[in-house]
Amino acid sequence: MSHETLLLGIDAGGTSTRAVLADADGRCLGYGVGGRGNPISAGPARAAQGVLDAVMRALQPAGRTLADVTGAVAAMAGMRASGGSAWLHGPLREHGFTGALTFESDILAAYFSGSAASFGYALVSGTGACVVRVEDGRIEGTGDGLGWLLGDRGSGFWIGHAVATAAVQELDSTGPATALTARVLAHYGIPRTGVMHQGRPEELERLIEVLYAHPPIELAALAPYAFADADAVAERILQTAGAHLADTLSAVLTGPGPLVVGGSVLARTGPVQDAFLARLGGAAEALAIRPVGDGAVGAAFLALRAAGVRADEETLTTLTESLALLR
Amino acid sequence: MSHETLLLGIDAGGTSTRAVLADADGRCLGYGVGGRGNPISAGPARAAQGVLDAVMRALQPAGRTLADVTGAVAAMAGMRASGGSAWLHGPLREHGFTGALTFESDILAAYFSGSAASFGYALVSGTGACVVRVEDGRIEGTGDGLGWLLGDRGSGFWIGHAVATAAVQELDSTGPATALTARVLAHYGIPRTGVMHQGRPEELERLIEVLYAHPPIELAALAPYAFADADAVAERILQTAGAHLADTLSAVLTGPGPLVVGGSVLARTGPVQDAFLARLGGAAEALAIRPVGDGAVGAAFLALRAAGVRADEETLTTLTESLALLR
Repeated sequence: MSHETLLLGIDAGGTSTRAVLADADGRCLGYGVGGRGNPISAGPARAAQGVLDAVMRALQPAGRTLADVTGAVAAMAGMRASGGSAWLHGPLREHGFTGALTFESDILAAYFSGSAASFGYALVSGTGACVVRVEDGRIEGTGDGLGWLLGDRGSGFWIGHAVATAAVQELDSTGPATALTARVLAHYGIPRTGVMHQGRPEELERLIEVLYAHPPIELAALAPYAFADADAVAERILQTAGAHLADTLSAVLTGPGPLVVGGSVLARTGPVQDAFLARLGGAAEALAIRPVGDGAVGAAFLALRAAGVRADEETLTTLTESLALLR
Repeated sequence: MSHETLLLGIDAGGTSTRAVLADADGRCLGYGVGGRGNPISAGPARAAQGVLDAVMRALQPAGRTLADVTGAVAAMAGMRASGGSAWLHGPLREHGFTGALTFESDILAAYFSGSAASFGYALVSGTGACVVRVEDGRIEGTGDGLGWLLGDRGSGFWIGHAVATAAVQELDSTGPATALTARVLAHYGIPRTGVMHQGRPEELERLIEVLYAHPPIELAALAPYAFADADAVAERILQTAGAHLADTLSAVLTGPGPLVVGGSVLARTGPVQDAFLARLGGAAEALAIRPVGDGAVGAAFLALRAAGVRADEETLTTLTESLALLR
């Protein structure tokens, strides 16, 4: 067993998991990717396996084992609702881990992937959408992140749902014509037949049937069509998404600071970004916007901080640059 | 076995089922209520039992059996998606039924509960919302009825969802204060503690947890709070619901005619009705609005029509008046 300080940052997401092995100076020694890591959406056994796969892939090329690791931080969504840490702590211990395991919010990991400042904001719009205000390095304000049924306004789900609704409303003659309709029908392999049943196109009936046969969250898969089609309906959807994200940010905004932006929705130039900045108006000038790809660096940063070693702007730069060499 | 013509009209709904036994002159001889009668939402076995219970309760006090019945019409939602008639035809035959069984739309039954005209409109806004245009006694145009995830705008679900969202947004500081928040928290037995976790009230976390633990459609149970609280947020929800219902009607409107209105949402005077009529504007003057309680009379009317006996305004009056004496 080694005497060096070795830390694991784990960014456990709903579709994949990233693990970063770093030393006390923030140098990344290993990086690995695993499957679904969220116990709420994937179930505890599958999530633990997703995390373990990522961790083992980070350790093995570096010639280390879990027994060498001093401490680990797992960043994930909804950890307060996940019913404790046993689902992950147990499997890690079985594989030799004797260190400390700490859970943190995935949004805080996103924040520290882009900033080491103790005050600032993170906005993540992927499948869901959430904004936090960080003070003294902790989350002190939260906006949205309320899930697909009641919030996540401006998220990938929100956009995908709007795309599905636009297609359904055109076919129902309750909404305007849009290029999105052909995209959505093609997505589900539904041909246009022109056959009507009780004043309703057959393809609408088939579309409704297939849309209700899948979990609602899968509507997020339709979001890319809004970016692909530049017609008025698609543009309106993206503009509204950008405005929603700005409104959610405004709800937690108390002063100037860095704004770390994660998720794919705000990553592209175009109507979402334009509407987001326009809606923020003058407030946007007080924010230093920093896009991040994921929360891997931030999870490692939080692992350093949890271990009581130095974690500042210089550490963040070291983590970011040394991880870039491994990816 | 009797030689008289005896017909059964069955209004099979998602929460209860009504059966009307009528003779060829439209005189109601029996009326019964049973449980859930929709095979899609309740499952075929339970739905068949709901229908059978209603039918038996209509027959027994009249001293008749299923063997005496010439023909039956079952009016229900989504019968095209229900996978055939065997789920009901089988159990009816087991109980001696030898007549013809026909399925019709529940909205068409609602229409013929309020009008015998071969041209007109029906708007039903209960848990869901749907509008149809009737031509030559058949549905020739349909608007909405697209379900809770993609449509049903202005329905009880839509209003309940808006009520839940208003409460969640106030607690999240992304929406205005409203009396609805206290109602929704009380509905789920959640106390206000003032405790914050990561800048989020504890009661919001509990509310989100309970709202996602139930099927989304149950949000319809929150709709009555919008009618109970006359604050600006509640009024705005109801006005928007009324405007949505008017827009859906406008999508199928081709000329003057009776408008049969079913469901509880448009039944009360107040913001929904006011906004509905204001949005329709001049078009409202060409519509003779007739509220109906359910589709029981219309199901019996459709049973008479299916049997080839006279079904006109006089028959409708006879059905309505003689059923009123039995209920």
